[in-house]
Amino acid sequence: MPGAAQQQEAATAAGTDFARFERYVLDLQDRILSEAEAIDGSGKRFLRDRWSRGSESAGYGITAVLEGGDLLEKAAANISIIHGELSAQRAQAMSSRGRADIDPKGGQPYSAAAMSLVFHSAHPLVPTLRADVRLFQVAGSAWFGGGCDLTPSYLFEEDARDFHAHWRRVCERYGEGVYPEFKAWCDRYFYIPCRKEHRGIGGLFFDDVASGEAGYDAEAFVREVGDNILPSWTAIAARRRALPYSGAQRQWQLLRRGRYLEFNLLYDRGVKFGLDGGRVESIMVSAPPLIAWKYGVEAAEGSEEARLVEVLRAPREWA
Amino acid sequence: MPGAAQQQEAATAAGTDFARFERYVLDLQDRILSEAEAIDGSGKRFLRDRWSRGSESAGYGITAVLEGGDLLEKAAANISIIHGELSAQRAQAMSSRGRADIDPKGGQPYSAAAMSLVFHSAHPLVPTLRADVRLFQVAGSAWFGGGCDLTPSYLFEEDARDFHAHWRRVCERYGEGVYPEFKAWCDRYFYIPCRKEHRGIGGLFFDDVASGEAGYDAEAFVREVGDNILPSWTAIAARRRALPYSGAQRQWQLLRRGRYLEFNLLYDRGVKFGLDGGRVESIMVSAPPLIAWKYGVEAAEGSEEARLVEVLRAPREWA
Repeated sequence: MPGAAQQQEAATAAGTDFARFERYVLDLQDRILSEAEAIDGSGKRFLRDRWSRGSESAGYGITAVLEGGDLLEKAAANISIIHGELSAQRAQAMSSRGRADIDPKGGQPYSAAAMSLVFHSAHPLVPTLRADVRLFQVAGSAWFGGGCDLTPSYLFEEDARDFHAHWRRVCERYGEGVYPEFKAWCDRYFYIPCRKEHRGIGGLFFDDVASGEAGYDAEAFVREVGDNILPSWTAIAARRRALPYSGAQRQWQLLRRGRYLEFNLLYDRGVKFGLDGGRVESIMVSAPPLIAWKYGVEAAEGSEEARLVEVLRAPREWA
Repeated sequence: MPGAAQQQEAATAAGTDFARFERYVLDLQDRILSEAEAIDGSGKRFLRDRWSRGSESAGYGITAVLEGGDLLEKAAANISIIHGELSAQRAQAMSSRGRADIDPKGGQPYSAAAMSLVFHSAHPLVPTLRADVRLFQVAGSAWFGGGCDLTPSYLFEEDARDFHAHWRRVCERYGEGVYPEFKAWCDRYFYIPCRKEHRGIGGLFFDDVASGEAGYDAEAFVREVGDNILPSWTAIAARRRALPYSGAQRQWQLLRRGRYLEFNLLYDRGVKFGLDGGRVESIMVSAPPLIAWKYGVEAAEGSEEARLVEVLRAPREWA
């Protein structure tokens, strides 16, 4: 296992300062936790659970979770900093994506830094927010990934338009094609084949973004994505939590959360990667706090519930 | 796609009468539904949802589910009768298990008949019951599979002993080694690697049992397993439902159900096979009706909850 100093050297050589991005995700998590506590308003605080991978030089993380808030029924914002050696399986996957500098046999040292977030709302009209930003370094190269997407239980077209317009504005500073590409990637990624439904109304999703290849400063872009996670959601949350809701709407929310978990456990690459030797509680913290499954649930024709399902079956262009 | 008549011919040639086992699972389902309604006692009836795979000759099923009963918060007992063609993937898996008559390239016609069951109890002291019996026929050969296992939220050693003693008695009519082999197989199969826990306290699990190879009448054995599913559980359910329980015990049950779903979606071979082109609602009907996930739940040392977790980490011999 290579030490932190050796990793740091490789990282700086790659043109991206790993330690700088590590400081960024630590700071981002701090800011998100404070702001989320203020938005929640219950006075509850995030539990901050710091863990390490045996030794600090192999990596560490801070899992932060708030449960039973007024708005935030369960919210998590985690960072993880990993220094390790590529497994053959992961190296092959990266190599097959066209990464010529990856040895498909594995064994190369790598470093990863990530902040990932999910907010499950107590209020059925407030959409679930999911986001992450991440840096992966190996063999003198650095790639960024990340995204931010919305999973509502009820469709408010105004919310969908605002959310996507927000992300279009962020992306357009980096090029005309950035938003359409990452919006489409998000629709493709968050798809539940067995349900023939997308998980939510999308947003951004991207991986393997490197400064030289992208035509823009990838780190600057990803930091801007990170900084814009909460601003893309807070106004939407504020206006929806002010509305009254029924027990039937809450029940529909619990049923929709079932799809969220089905996606995570059946299809999410990050979950599968993380559970393979990762820290199970830091991964499963993304699970909704309470979920219902009933047999053969179908939204009544013409209902608000059917309006949501329709847009999950056929994603729209919102911005 | 081969027709039912062609399949039937192959089935009879294999020495096992497919139509006879098909009638058996239909009758078994009927008997289980009636008995389960009586045990539940709420007056609720199973919904019986019949479906077909495009044409009747390609197969059909009856998904039967009772939701919101007094004892049975959600109970399902399904049959499915499938006639199809082996995919290359499935053929390779079977071939690699030593099935010389399977063409690893796929394309051979097969038939399958199965009854599968899961009872999720409203009462946290009544264990979840899962069971199935199945017949698979291809290329002139027939193999049976099945099993029955218990997933309690609280450990009653008397229940664990009675359940396993019941299955030992059933198995011993077919040979001394049958129970130990299938008990160990069950412990191996229902294991959740990311949690380092077994899903429940086990029971029986078996696959690929053929009359000529097993040294006993495989069909007679599997029918006896089917007939013994409810008797292995009813006395346990009756004595535990009579006990009072607390809100904290109900909460622990909801958390334990999370592990049940994690196993099903992350690791269960049958779920993965079924979702790949199968009928999603008939597979996901096995999901518990209500599940909770909290961060970092640990049973207090010396508590009843810890006594359960201990036995899930290190399975015991009960009978």
